[in-house]
Amino acid sequence: MKYPDGLSAFPITPANVDGSVDLGALRQVLSPLLDARVDSIGLLGSTGTYMYLSREERCRAIETAADMSGPVPIIAGIGALRTDDAVRLAQDARSAGASAGLLAPVSYTPLTDDEVFEHFSTVARESGLPLCIYDNPGTTHFKFTSGLIGRLSRIERIVAVKSPAPEPAGIKSHHAELRAAVRDGFSLGYSGDWNSVEGLIAGASTWYSVLGGLFPHTCLSMVRAAQRNDADEARRLNATLEPVWSLFKEFSSLRVVYTIAELNHAIHAKPPRPILPLAPSARAKVEAALAGLPSGLR
Amino acid sequence: MKYPDGLSAFPITPANVDGSVDLGALRQVLSPLLDARVDSIGLLGSTGTYMYLSREERCRAIETAADMSGPVPIIAGIGALRTDDAVRLAQDARSAGASAGLLAPVSYTPLTDDEVFEHFSTVARESGLPLCIYDNPGTTHFKFTSGLIGRLSRIERIVAVKSPAPEPAGIKSHHAELRAAVRDGFSLGYSGDWNSVEGLIAGASTWYSVLGGLFPHTCLSMVRAAQRNDADEARRLNATLEPVWSLFKEFSSLRVVYTIAELNHAIHAKPPRPILPLAPSARAKVEAALAGLPSGLR
Repeated sequence: MKYPDGLSAFPITPANVDGSVDLGALRQVLSPLLDARVDSIGLLGSTGTYMYLSREERCRAIETAADMSGPVPIIAGIGALRTDDAVRLAQDARSAGASAGLLAPVSYTPLTDDEVFEHFSTVARESGLPLCIYDNPGTTHFKFTSGLIGRLSRIERIVAVKSPAPEPAGIKSHHAELRAAVRDGFSLGYSGDWNSVEGLIAGASTWYSVLGGLFPHTCLSMVRAAQRNDADEARRLNATLEPVWSLFKEFSSLRVVYTIAELNHAIHAKPPRPILPLAPSARAKVEAALAGLPSGLR
Repeated sequence: MKYPDGLSAFPITPANVDGSVDLGALRQVLSPLLDARVDSIGLLGSTGTYMYLSREERCRAIETAADMSGPVPIIAGIGALRTDDAVRLAQDARSAGASAGLLAPVSYTPLTDDEVFEHFSTVARESGLPLCIYDNPGTTHFKFTSGLIGRLSRIERIVAVKSPAPEPAGIKSHHAELRAAVRDGFSLGYSGDWNSVEGLIAGASTWYSVLGGLFPHTCLSMVRAAQRNDADEARRLNATLEPVWSLFKEFSSLRVVYTIAELNHAIHAKPPRPILPLAPSARAKVEAALAGLPSGLR
Protein backbone atom coordinates (compact mmCIF):
# COMPACT_ATOMS: atom_id res chain seq x y z
CA MET A 1 0.00 0.00 0.00
CA LYS A 2 1.23 3.48 -0.92
CA TYR A 3 0.60 5.75 2.07
CA PRO A 4 -1.66 8.67 1.13
CA ASP A 5 0.54 11.75 1.51
CA GLY A 6 -0.67 15.31 0.87
CA LEU A 7 -3.71 16.81 2.60
CA SER A 8 -5.41 14.62 5.17
CA ALA A 9 -8.66 16.38 6.08
CA PHE A 10 -9.89 15.82 9.64
CA PRO A 11 -13.64 16.41 9.96
CA ILE A 12 -15.80 16.37 13.06
CA THR A 13 -17.96 13.29 13.65
CA PRO A 14 -21.47 14.67 14.19
CA ALA A 15 -23.15 12.70 16.97
CA ASN A 16 -26.32 12.81 19.03
CA VAL A 17 -26.28 13.49 22.77
CA ASP A 18 -26.43 9.74 23.48
CA GLY A 19 -23.16 9.20 21.59
CA SER A 20 -24.69 7.69 18.44
CA VAL A 21 -23.16 9.02 15.23
CA ASP A 22 -25.51 11.09 13.05
CA LEU A 23 -24.72 9.36 9.76
CA GLY A 24 -26.70 11.84 7.66
CA ALA A 25 -24.76 14.76 9.09
CA LEU A 26 -21.51 12.83 8.70
CA ARG A 27 -22.22 12.39 4.98
CA GLN A 28 -22.93 16.13 4.78
CA VAL A 29 -19.54 16.83 6.38
CA LEU A 30 -17.68 14.40 4.13
CA SER A 31 -19.25 15.31 0.79
CA PRO A 32 -17.41 18.59 0.16
CA LEU A 33 -14.10 16.99 1.15
CA LEU A 34 -14.56 14.20 -1.35
CA ASP A 35 -15.74 16.64 -4.03
CA ALA A 36 -12.56 18.66 -3.44
CA ARG A 37 -10.52 15.43 -3.80
CA VAL A 38 -8.52 15.74 -0.61
CA ASP A 39 -5.68 13.20 -0.50
CA SER A 40 -7.19 11.36 2.45
CA ILE A 41 -9.88 11.64 5.07
CA GLY A 42 -8.61 11.62 8.67
CA LEU A 43 -11.72 10.11 10.17
CA LEU A 44 -12.16 9.80 13.94
CA GLY A 45 -9.18 11.96 14.81
CA SER A 46 -9.13 14.02 17.98
CA THR A 47 -11.41 16.53 16.25
CA GLY A 48 -13.53 13.54 15.28
CA THR A 49 -13.89 12.81 19.05
CA TYR A 50 -12.92 9.17 18.63
CA MET A 51 -12.18 8.68 22.30
CA TYR A 52 -15.77 9.63 23.13
CA LEU A 53 -17.38 7.11 20.78
CA SER A 54 -18.06 3.41 21.37
CA ARG A 55 -16.58 0.65 19.28
CA GLU A 56 -19.91 0.16 17.49
CA GLU A 57 -20.32 3.83 16.67
CA ARG A 58 -16.77 4.16 15.40
CA CYS A 59 -17.41 1.20 13.14
CA ARG A 60 -20.62 2.73 11.75
CA ALA A 61 -18.78 5.96 11.01
CA ILE A 62 -15.98 4.21 9.10
CA GLU A 63 -18.41 2.06 7.11
CA THR A 64 -20.42 5.12 6.13
CA ALA A 65 -17.32 7.04 5.06
CA ALA A 66 -15.88 4.07 3.16
CA ASP A 67 -19.16 3.59 1.31
CA MET A 68 -19.00 7.08 -0.16
CA SER A 69 -15.28 7.83 -0.37
CA GLY A 70 -14.49 6.12 -3.71
CA PRO A 71 -10.77 6.53 -4.43
CA VAL A 72 -10.08 8.75 -1.41
CA PRO A 73 -8.40 6.66 1.31
CA ILE A 74 -9.60 6.77 4.89
CA ILE A 75 -7.18 6.97 7.80
CA ALA A 76 -9.16 6.12 10.91
CA GLY A 77 -8.47 6.81 14.58
CA ILE A 78 -8.15 3.51 16.47
CA GLY A 79 -6.73 4.66 19.81
CA ALA A 80 -7.88 3.19 23.13
CA LEU A 81 -6.56 2.92 26.67
CA ARG A 82 -6.27 -0.88 26.56
CA THR A 83 -4.06 -2.65 24.03
CA ASP A 84 -6.68 -5.35 23.36
CA ASP A 85 -9.30 -2.68 22.64
CA ALA A 86 -6.95 -0.90 20.23
CA VAL A 87 -6.33 -4.20 18.44
CA ARG A 88 -10.08 -4.77 18.05
CA LEU A 89 -10.63 -1.20 16.83
CA ALA A 90 -7.85 -1.63 14.26
CA GLN A 91 -9.35 -4.92 13.07
CA ASP A 92 -12.77 -3.25 12.83
CA ALA A 93 -11.32 -0.32 10.89
CA ARG A 94 -9.64 -2.64 8.43
CA SER A 95 -12.82 -4.67 7.87
CA ALA A 96 -14.87 -1.50 7.50
CA GLY A 97 -12.65 -0.23 4.71
CA ALA A 98 -10.04 2.06 6.27
CA SER A 99 -6.67 2.16 4.46
CA ALA A 100 -4.68 2.98 7.59
CA GLY A 101 -5.12 3.46 11.31
CA LEU A 102 -4.13 6.47 13.34
CA LEU A 103 -2.84 5.24 16.69
CA ALA A 104 -2.17 7.54 19.64
CA PRO A 105 -0.66 6.34 22.93
CA VAL A 106 -3.81 7.25 24.83
CA SER A 107 -3.04 7.03 28.50
CA TYR A 108 -4.46 7.36 31.98
CA THR A 109 -1.52 5.86 33.85
CA PRO A 110 1.49 7.60 32.25
CA LEU A 111 3.27 5.15 29.94
CA THR A 112 6.96 4.33 29.51
CA ASP A 113 8.67 4.16 26.10
CA ASP A 114 8.79 0.36 26.27
CA GLU A 115 5.06 0.19 27.02
CA VAL A 116 4.26 2.40 24.03
CA PHE A 117 6.58 0.33 21.84
CA GLU A 118 4.83 -2.92 22.85
CA HIS A 119 1.40 -1.35 22.44
CA PHE A 120 2.12 -0.20 18.89
CA SER A 121 3.86 -3.43 17.86
CA THR A 122 0.96 -5.52 19.14
CA VAL A 123 -1.66 -3.49 17.30
CA ALA A 124 0.36 -3.56 14.05
CA ARG A 125 0.96 -7.30 14.31
CA GLU A 126 -2.51 -8.39 15.36
CA SER A 127 -4.57 -6.13 13.12
CA GLY A 128 -2.71 -6.22 9.81
CA LEU A 129 -3.65 -2.55 9.35
CA PRO A 130 -0.96 -0.04 8.23
CA LEU A 131 -0.50 2.46 11.05
CA CYS A 132 0.31 6.12 11.41
CA ILE A 133 1.81 7.08 14.78
CA TYR A 134 -0.39 9.80 16.23
CA ASP A 135 1.90 12.02 18.28
CA ASN A 136 -0.43 14.37 20.12
CA PRO A 137 1.01 15.30 23.51
CA GLY A 138 -1.77 17.86 24.06
CA THR A 139 -4.26 15.02 24.51
CA THR A 140 -2.18 11.95 25.38
CA HIS A 141 0.51 13.71 27.47
CA PHE A 142 3.01 11.21 26.13
CA LYS A 143 6.22 12.70 24.72
CA PHE A 144 7.66 10.79 21.78
CA THR A 145 11.41 11.03 21.26
CA SER A 146 12.77 10.77 17.73
CA GLY A 147 14.55 7.64 18.97
CA LEU A 148 11.27 5.92 19.81
CA ILE A 149 9.69 6.97 16.50
CA GLY A 150 12.80 5.58 14.78
CA ARG A 151 12.39 2.22 16.56
CA LEU A 152 8.69 2.12 15.69
CA SER A 153 9.37 3.00 12.03
CA ARG A 154 11.16 -0.34 11.70
CA ILE A 155 8.10 -2.36 12.74
CA GLU A 156 6.22 -3.93 9.86
CA ARG A 157 3.13 -1.90 8.91
CA ILE A 158 4.05 1.19 10.95
CA VAL A 159 4.37 3.53 8.00
CA ALA A 160 3.90 7.16 9.05
CA VAL A 161 3.97 9.68 11.86
CA LYS A 162 1.77 12.70 12.45
CA SER A 163 3.82 15.06 14.61
CA PRO A 164 2.66 18.26 16.29
CA ALA A 165 4.19 21.10 14.29
CA PRO A 166 6.70 23.02 16.40
CA GLU A 167 7.08 26.81 16.11
CA PRO A 168 8.39 27.82 12.63
CA ALA A 169 11.89 28.58 13.93
CA GLY A 170 12.33 24.98 15.10
CA ILE A 171 10.60 23.09 12.33
CA LYS A 172 13.57 22.50 9.99
CA SER A 173 15.72 20.94 12.67
CA HIS A 174 12.80 18.90 14.02
CA HIS A 175 12.10 17.53 10.57
CA ALA A 176 15.78 16.76 9.91
CA GLU A 177 16.12 14.97 13.26
CA LEU A 178 13.06 12.81 12.58
CA ARG A 179 14.17 12.05 9.03
CA ALA A 180 17.53 10.86 10.34
CA ALA A 181 15.84 8.63 12.93
CA VAL A 182 13.31 6.77 10.76
CA ARG A 183 13.73 4.16 8.05
CA ASP A 184 13.80 5.21 4.39
CA GLY A 185 10.39 5.80 2.86
CA PHE A 186 8.68 6.42 6.22
CA SER A 187 6.08 9.20 5.86
CA LEU A 188 6.55 12.35 7.97
CA GLY A 189 3.70 14.78 8.45
CA TYR A 190 2.50 17.55 10.71
CA SER A 191 -0.64 18.64 12.50
CA GLY A 192 -1.26 21.83 14.50
CA ASP A 193 -2.72 23.77 11.66
CA TRP A 194 -1.09 27.18 11.96
CA ASN A 195 2.50 25.93 11.79
CA SER A 196 2.01 23.01 9.42
CA VAL A 197 2.74 24.95 6.25
CA GLU A 198 6.33 25.43 7.43
CA GLY A 199 6.55 21.67 7.94
CA LEU A 200 5.52 21.10 4.33
CA ILE A 201 8.05 23.67 3.14
CA ALA A 202 10.71 21.90 5.22
CA GLY A 203 9.96 18.68 3.34
CA ALA A 204 7.19 16.90 5.24
CA SER A 205 4.89 15.01 2.94
CA THR A 206 1.56 15.31 4.76
CA TRP A 207 -0.55 17.94 6.46
CA TYR A 208 -3.02 16.38 8.90
CA SER A 209 -5.42 19.28 8.97
CA VAL A 210 -8.43 20.14 11.09
CA LEU A 211 -9.24 23.14 8.90
CA GLY A 212 -8.86 20.87 5.89
CA GLY A 213 -12.03 19.19 7.17
CA LEU A 214 -13.92 22.45 6.61
CA PHE A 215 -11.99 24.49 3.99
CA PRO A 216 -10.60 21.72 1.77
CA HIS A 217 -9.98 23.91 -1.31
CA THR A 218 -7.80 26.46 0.47
CA CYS A 219 -5.90 23.79 2.39
CA LEU A 220 -5.37 21.78 -0.80
CA SER A 221 -4.04 24.88 -2.56
CA MET A 222 -1.53 25.31 0.25
CA VAL A 223 -0.39 21.70 0.00
CA ARG A 224 -0.12 21.85 -3.79
CA ALA A 225 1.89 25.09 -3.59
CA ALA A 226 4.31 23.46 -1.14
CA GLN A 227 4.52 20.35 -3.32
CA ARG A 228 5.66 22.44 -6.32
CA ASN A 229 8.11 24.31 -4.04
CA ASP A 230 6.16 27.56 -4.21
CA ALA A 231 6.78 28.51 -0.59
CA ASP A 232 5.66 32.10 -1.13
CA GLU A 233 2.19 31.09 -2.29
CA ALA A 234 1.83 28.51 0.50
CA ARG A 235 2.77 31.14 3.07
CA ARG A 236 0.54 33.78 1.47
CA LEU A 237 -2.49 31.49 1.76
CA ASN A 238 -1.56 30.55 5.31
CA ALA A 239 -1.41 34.24 6.23
CA THR A 240 -4.95 34.81 4.95
CA LEU A 241 -6.10 32.17 7.45
CA GLU A 242 -4.52 33.98 10.39
CA PRO A 243 -7.91 35.04 11.85
CA VAL A 244 -8.88 31.36 12.04
CA TRP A 245 -5.56 30.34 13.58
CA SER A 246 -6.09 32.99 16.27
CA LEU A 247 -9.45 31.47 17.12
CA PHE A 248 -7.93 27.96 17.24
CA LYS A 249 -5.29 29.18 19.68
CA GLU A 250 -7.78 31.05 21.86
CA PHE A 251 -10.68 28.56 22.00
CA SER A 252 -9.14 25.24 20.75
CA SER A 253 -9.61 24.00 17.20
CA LEU A 254 -12.19 21.39 18.22
CA ARG A 255 -14.62 23.85 19.78
CA VAL A 256 -14.10 26.35 16.93
CA VAL A 257 -14.72 23.88 14.10
CA TYR A 258 -17.98 22.71 15.66
CA THR A 259 -19.09 26.33 15.52
CA ILE A 260 -17.87 26.84 11.93
CA ALA A 261 -19.61 23.62 10.85
CA GLU A 262 -22.84 24.99 12.22
CA LEU A 263 -22.42 28.46 10.71
CA ASN A 264 -21.25 27.27 7.27
CA HIS A 265 -22.91 23.91 6.77
CA ALA A 266 -25.89 23.96 9.15
CA ILE A 267 -24.53 20.93 11.03
CA HIS A 268 -26.12 21.30 14.45
CA ALA A 269 -24.06 18.66 16.24
CA LYS A 270 -22.59 19.49 19.62
CA PRO A 271 -19.32 18.10 20.98
CA PRO A 272 -19.72 15.24 23.48
CA ARG A 273 -20.24 16.28 27.11
CA PRO A 274 -18.26 17.26 29.17
CA ILE A 275 -16.97 19.35 26.23
CA LEU A 276 -19.24 22.37 25.90
CA PRO A 277 -20.06 24.38 22.77
CA LEU A 278 -18.47 27.82 22.64
CA ALA A 279 -20.10 30.52 24.78
CA PRO A 280 -22.06 33.21 22.87
CA SER A 281 -19.24 35.77 23.11
CA ALA A 282 -16.72 33.33 21.61
CA ARG A 283 -19.22 32.28 18.98
CA ALA A 284 -19.65 35.92 17.95
CA LYS A 285 -15.88 36.17 17.48
CA VAL A 286 -15.94 33.10 15.21
CA GLU A 287 -18.78 34.60 13.21
CA ALA A 288 -16.93 37.88 12.79
CA ALA A 289 -13.70 36.15 11.77
CA LEU A 290 -15.53 34.07 9.16
CA ALA A 291 -17.29 37.10 7.75
CA GLY A 292 -13.92 38.85 7.40
CA LEU A 293 -12.30 36.08 5.33
CA PRO A 294 -12.09 36.50 1.52
CA SER A 295 -15.10 34.59 0.19
CA GLY A 296 -12.91 32.27 -1.91
CA LEU A 297 -11.28 30.89 1.21
CA ARG A 298 -14.31 29.60 3.04
CA MET B 1 -24.14 10.45 55.45
CA LYS B 2 -21.01 11.09 57.50
CA TYR B 3 -18.05 11.01 55.12
CA PRO B 4 -15.52 8.32 56.12
CA ASP B 5 -12.41 10.27 57.12
CA GLY B 6 -9.17 8.63 58.27
CA LEU B 7 -7.33 5.98 56.24
CA SER B 8 -8.81 5.18 52.85
CA ALA B 9 -6.94 2.12 51.58
CA PHE B 10 -6.57 1.86 47.79
CA PRO B 11 -5.99 -1.73 46.65
CA ILE B 12 -5.26 -3.03 43.17
CA THR B 13 -8.11 -4.70 41.29
CA PRO B 14 -6.73 -8.08 40.20
CA ALA B 15 -7.93 -8.82 36.68
CA ASN B 16 -7.36 -11.37 33.96
CA VAL B 17 -5.72 -10.46 30.66
CA ASP B 18 -9.14 -10.09 29.01
CA GLY B 19 -10.09 -7.36 31.50
CA SER B 20 -12.42 -9.48 33.65
CA VAL B 21 -11.94 -8.92 37.39
CA ASP B 22 -10.58 -11.91 39.31
CA LEU B 23 -13.07 -11.84 42.17
CA GLY B 24 -11.29 -14.48 44.23
CA ALA B 25 -8.04 -12.52 44.12
CA LEU B 26 -9.95 -9.30 44.86
CA ARG B 27 -11.36 -10.88 48.05
CA GLN B 28 -7.83 -11.95 48.95
CA VAL B 29 -6.64 -8.35 48.55
CA LEU B 30 -9.56 -6.88 50.53
CA SER B 31 -9.59 -9.32 53.46
CA PRO B 32 -6.55 -7.98 55.34
CA LEU B 33 -7.76 -4.40 54.89
CA LEU B 34 -11.13 -5.21 56.41
CA ASP B 35 -9.50 -7.24 59.20
CA ALA B 36 -7.33 -4.20 59.98
CA ARG B 37 -10.49 -2.04 60.07
CA VAL B 38 -9.30 0.65 57.68
CA ASP B 39 -11.66 3.63 57.70
CA SER B 40 -12.71 3.08 54.09
CA ILE B 41 -11.79 1.10 51.00
CA GLY B 42 -10.86 3.23 47.99
CA LEU B 43 -11.97 0.73 45.39
CA LEU B 44 -11.29 1.29 41.69
CA GLY B 45 -8.93 4.17 42.21
CA SER B 46 -6.10 4.84 39.78
CA THR B 47 -4.17 1.98 41.41
CA GLY B 48 -7.37 -0.04 40.99
CA THR B 49 -7.09 0.63 37.21
CA TYR B 50 -10.69 1.77 36.97
CA MET B 51 -10.17 3.45 33.62
CA TYR B 52 -9.11 0.10 32.12
CA LEU B 53 -12.21 -1.81 33.27
CA SER B 54 -15.62 -1.97 31.62
CA ARG B 55 -18.81 -0.82 33.28
CA GLU B 56 -19.82 -4.44 33.95
CA GLU B 57 -16.49 -5.37 35.52
CA ARG B 58 -16.44 -2.28 37.71
CA CYS B 59 -19.91 -3.21 38.92
CA ARG B 60 -18.87 -6.78 39.75
CA ALA B 61 -15.90 -5.48 41.73
CA ILE B 62 -18.04 -3.11 43.81
CA GLU B 63 -20.70 -5.76 44.50
CA THR B 64 -18.04 -8.23 45.64
CA ALA B 65 -16.40 -5.67 47.93
CA ALA B 66 -19.74 -4.48 49.34
CA ASP B 67 -20.76 -8.07 50.08
CA MET B 68 -17.78 -8.59 52.36
CA SER B 69 -17.03 -5.10 53.71
CA GLY B 70 -19.55 -5.02 56.59
CA PRO B 71 -19.26 -1.67 58.38
CA VAL B 72 -16.31 -0.43 56.28
CA PRO B 73 -17.57 2.04 53.67
CA ILE B 74 -16.54 1.77 50.04
CA ILE B 75 -15.53 4.80 48.02
CA ALA B 76 -15.56 3.74 44.38
CA GLY B 77 -13.93 5.28 41.32
CA ILE B 78 -16.59 6.35 38.82
CA GLY B 79 -14.58 8.46 36.36
CA ALA B 80 -15.16 8.31 32.61
CA LEU B 81 -14.46 10.47 29.59
CA ARG B 82 -18.15 11.08 28.82
CA THR B 83 -20.47 12.73 31.31
CA ASP B 84 -23.29 10.29 30.59
CA ASP B 85 -20.98 7.33 31.23
CA ALA B 86 -19.83 8.84 34.54
CA VAL B 87 -23.49 9.29 35.55
CA ARG B 88 -24.21 5.62 34.79
CA LEU B 89 -21.11 4.47 36.66
CA ALA B 90 -22.14 6.54 39.68
CA GLN B 91 -25.65 5.09 39.58
CA ASP B 92 -24.18 1.59 39.32
CA ALA B 93 -21.82 2.23 42.25
CA ARG B 94 -24.68 3.45 44.40
CA SER B 95 -26.86 0.43 43.57
CA ALA B 96 -23.93 -1.93 44.16
CA GLY B 97 -23.40 -0.59 47.68
CA ALA B 98 -20.73 2.12 47.47
CA SER B 99 -21.03 4.89 50.06
CA ALA B 100 -19.39 7.53 47.90
CA GLY B 101 -17.94 7.99 44.42
CA LEU B 102 -14.49 9.17 43.54
CA LEU B 103 -14.77 11.36 40.45
CA ALA B 104 -11.74 12.53 38.45
CA PRO B 105 -12.02 14.92 35.49
CA VAL B 106 -10.70 12.28 33.11
CA SER B 107 -9.95 13.96 29.82
CA TYR B 108 -8.72 13.43 26.30
CA THR B 109 -9.60 16.87 24.95
CA PRO B 110 -8.29 19.22 27.68
CA LEU B 111 -11.23 20.58 29.68
CA THR B 112 -12.06 24.10 30.85
CA ASP B 113 -13.07 24.90 34.44
CA ASP B 114 -16.69 25.42 33.37
CA GLU B 115 -16.74 22.02 31.65
CA VAL B 116 -15.41 20.29 34.78
CA PHE B 117 -17.94 22.17 36.92
CA GLU B 118 -20.84 21.04 34.71
CA HIS B 119 -19.50 17.47 34.57
CA PHE B 120 -19.33 17.17 38.36
CA SER B 121 -22.67 18.90 38.97
CA THR B 122 -24.40 16.61 36.50
CA VAL B 123 -22.99 13.44 38.03
CA ALA B 124 -23.87 14.58 41.56
CA ARG B 125 -27.41 15.56 40.56
CA GLU B 126 -28.26 12.58 38.39
CA SER B 127 -26.71 9.82 40.50
CA GLY B 128 -27.64 10.82 44.05
CA LEU B 129 -24.24 9.46 45.15
CA PRO B 130 -22.04 11.53 47.52
CA LEU B 131 -18.87 12.46 45.63
CA CYS B 132 -15.24 13.00 46.42
CA ILE B 133 -13.39 15.21 43.92
CA TYR B 134 -10.43 13.19 42.67
CA ASP B 135 -7.72 15.72 41.91
CA ASN B 136 -5.01 13.71 40.15
CA PRO B 137 -3.19 15.89 37.60
CA GLY B 138 -0.64 13.11 36.98
CA THR B 139 -3.32 11.06 35.22
CA THR B 140 -6.01 13.57 34.19
CA HIS B 141 -3.70 16.51 33.39
CA PHE B 142 -6.42 18.82 34.68
CA LYS B 143 -5.27 21.44 37.18
CA PHE B 144 -7.85 22.25 39.85
CA THR B 145 -7.68 25.72 41.39
CA SER B 146 -8.83 26.18 44.97
CA GLY B 147 -11.46 28.49 43.51
CA LEU B 148 -12.98 25.68 41.43
CA ILE B 149 -12.87 23.25 44.36
CA GLY B 150 -14.59 25.94 46.43
CA ARG B 151 -17.38 26.30 43.84
CA LEU B 152 -17.79 22.52 43.65
CA SER B 153 -17.89 22.17 47.46
CA ARG B 154 -21.15 24.12 47.40
CA ILE B 155 -22.89 21.62 45.13
CA GLU B 156 -25.22 19.23 46.92
CA ARG B 157 -23.58 15.83 47.51
CA ILE B 158 -20.03 16.95 46.62
CA VAL B 159 -18.55 16.32 50.03
CA ALA B 160 -14.78 15.80 49.84
CA VAL B 161 -11.61 16.34 47.85
CA LYS B 162 -8.60 14.08 47.46
CA SER B 163 -5.70 16.38 46.58
CA PRO B 164 -2.20 15.41 45.50
CA ALA B 165 0.04 16.14 48.49
CA PRO B 166 2.50 18.92 47.65
CA GLU B 167 6.07 18.86 48.96
CA PRO B 168 6.17 19.18 52.79
CA ALA B 169 7.32 22.81 52.70
CA GLY B 170 4.16 23.83 50.83
CA ILE B 171 1.57 21.65 52.49
CA LYS B 172 0.45 23.98 55.31
CA SER B 173 -0.29 26.87 52.98
CA HIS B 174 -1.96 24.55 50.45
CA HIS B 175 -4.20 23.14 53.15
CA ALA B 176 -5.05 26.60 54.53
CA GLU B 177 -5.88 27.92 51.06
CA LEU B 178 -8.21 25.00 50.35
CA ARG B 179 -9.85 25.24 53.78
CA ALA B 180 -10.57 28.92 53.14
CA ALA B 181 -12.07 28.13 49.72
CA VAL B 182 -14.50 25.33 50.62
CA ARG B 183 -17.72 25.29 52.61
CA ASP B 184 -17.66 24.36 56.30
CA GLY B 185 -17.58 20.64 56.96
CA PHE B 186 -16.13 19.76 53.56
CA SER B 187 -13.61 16.91 53.88
CA LEU B 188 -10.01 17.62 52.82
CA GLY B 189 -7.59 14.76 52.23
CA TYR B 190 -4.35 13.92 50.49
CA SER B 191 -2.90 11.25 48.26
CA GLY B 192 0.68 10.85 47.01
CA ASP B 193 1.77 8.58 49.78
CA TRP B 194 5.17 9.91 50.77
CA ASN B 195 4.00 13.45 51.55
CA SER B 196 0.56 12.65 52.92
CA VAL B 197 1.62 12.39 56.54
CA GLU B 198 2.46 16.10 56.50
CA GLY B 199 -1.02 16.76 55.15
CA LEU B 200 -2.55 14.93 58.11
CA ILE B 201 -0.32 16.84 60.51
CA ALA B 202 -1.42 20.10 58.84
CA GLY B 203 -5.04 19.20 59.60
CA ALA B 204 -6.31 17.17 56.66
CA SER B 205 -8.80 14.53 57.73
CA THR B 206 -8.10 11.75 55.23
CA TRP B 207 -5.16 9.88 53.72
CA TYR B 208 -6.07 8.24 50.43
CA SER B 209 -3.30 5.69 50.46
CA VAL B 210 -1.98 3.24 47.89
CA LEU B 211 0.31 1.65 50.47
CA GLY B 212 -2.68 1.46 52.82
CA GLY B 213 -4.02 -1.12 50.37
CA LEU B 214 -1.04 -3.35 51.21
CA PHE B 215 0.26 -2.33 54.67
CA PRO B 216 -2.97 -1.31 56.42
CA HIS B 217 -1.64 -1.66 59.99
CA THR B 218 1.32 0.66 59.53
CA CYS B 219 -0.69 3.20 57.59
CA LEU B 220 -3.49 3.11 60.20
CA SER B 221 -0.90 3.68 62.95
CA MET B 222 0.30 6.75 61.10
CA VAL B 223 -3.23 8.11 60.73
CA ARG B 224 -4.08 7.42 64.38
CA ALA B 225 -0.85 9.12 65.51
CA ALA B 226 -1.72 12.21 63.46
CA GLN B 227 -5.29 12.14 64.78
CA ARG B 228 -4.03 12.31 68.40
CA ASN B 229 -1.59 15.09 67.38
CA ASP B 230 1.45 12.86 67.81
CA ALA B 231 3.33 14.28 64.84
CA ASP B 232 6.63 12.74 65.93
CA GLU B 233 5.29 9.20 65.87
CA ALA B 234 3.52 9.77 62.53
CA ARG B 235 6.76 11.08 61.02
CA ARG B 236 8.83 8.29 62.58
CA LEU B 237 6.63 5.64 60.96
CA ASN B 238 6.68 7.52 57.66
CA ALA B 239 10.48 7.56 57.75
CA THR B 240 10.62 3.77 58.16
CA LEU B 241 8.69 3.53 54.89
CA GLU B 242 11.25 5.62 53.01
CA PRO B 243 12.58 2.61 51.02
CA VAL B 244 9.05 2.05 49.67
CA TRP B 245 8.56 5.73 48.87
CA SER B 246 11.80 5.65 46.86
CA LEU B 247 10.48 2.75 44.80
CA PHE B 248 7.17 4.56 44.24
CA LYS B 249 9.05 7.61 42.96
CA GLU B 250 11.36 5.58 40.73
CA PHE B 251 8.93 3.04 39.23
CA SER B 252 5.45 4.51 39.97
CA SER B 253 3.31 3.31 42.86
CA LEU B 254 1.01 1.30 40.59
CA ARG B 255 3.74 -0.88 39.09
CA VAL B 256 5.40 -1.32 42.49
CA VAL B 257 2.27 -2.39 44.36
CA TYR B 258 1.49 -5.04 41.76
CA THR B 259 4.91 -6.49 42.49
CA ILE B 260 4.49 -6.24 46.28
CA ALA B 261 1.07 -7.89 46.04
CA GLU B 262 2.68 -10.79 44.25
CA LEU B 263 5.63 -11.09 46.62
CA ASN B 264 3.62 -10.70 49.84
CA HIS B 265 0.22 -12.14 49.04
CA ALA B 266 0.80 -14.41 46.04
CA ILE B 267 -1.59 -12.36 43.90
CA HIS B 268 -0.37 -13.09 40.38
CA ALA B 269 -2.42 -10.42 38.60
CA LYS B 270 -0.69 -8.22 36.05
CA PRO B 271 -1.59 -4.61 35.31
CA PRO B 272 -3.70 -4.11 32.17
CA ARG B 273 -1.73 -3.79 28.92
CA PRO B 274 -0.20 -1.47 27.75
CA ILE B 275 1.04 -1.14 31.34
CA LEU B 276 3.81 -3.69 31.82
CA PRO B 277 4.93 -5.45 35.00
CA LEU B 278 8.26 -4.26 36.38
CA ALA B 279 11.36 -5.53 34.62
CA PRO B 280 13.41 -8.14 36.54
CA SER B 281 16.02 -5.58 37.70
CA ALA B 282 13.32 -3.31 39.16
CA ARG B 283 11.56 -6.30 40.69
CA ALA B 284 14.78 -7.27 42.45
CA LYS B 285 14.98 -3.77 43.94
CA VAL B 286 11.43 -4.12 45.29
CA GLU B 287 12.27 -7.49 46.78
CA ALA B 288 15.38 -6.11 48.46
CA ALA B 289 13.51 -3.09 49.84
CA LEU B 290 10.77 -5.31 51.28
CA ALA B 291 13.29 -7.64 52.88
CA GLY B 292 14.95 -4.64 54.53
CA LEU B 293 11.77 -3.32 56.20
CA PRO B 294 11.17 -4.09 59.90
CA SER B 295 8.93 -7.16 59.87
CA GLY B 296 6.18 -5.37 61.84
CA LEU B 297 5.70 -2.92 58.99
CA ARG B 298 4.88 -5.30 56.21
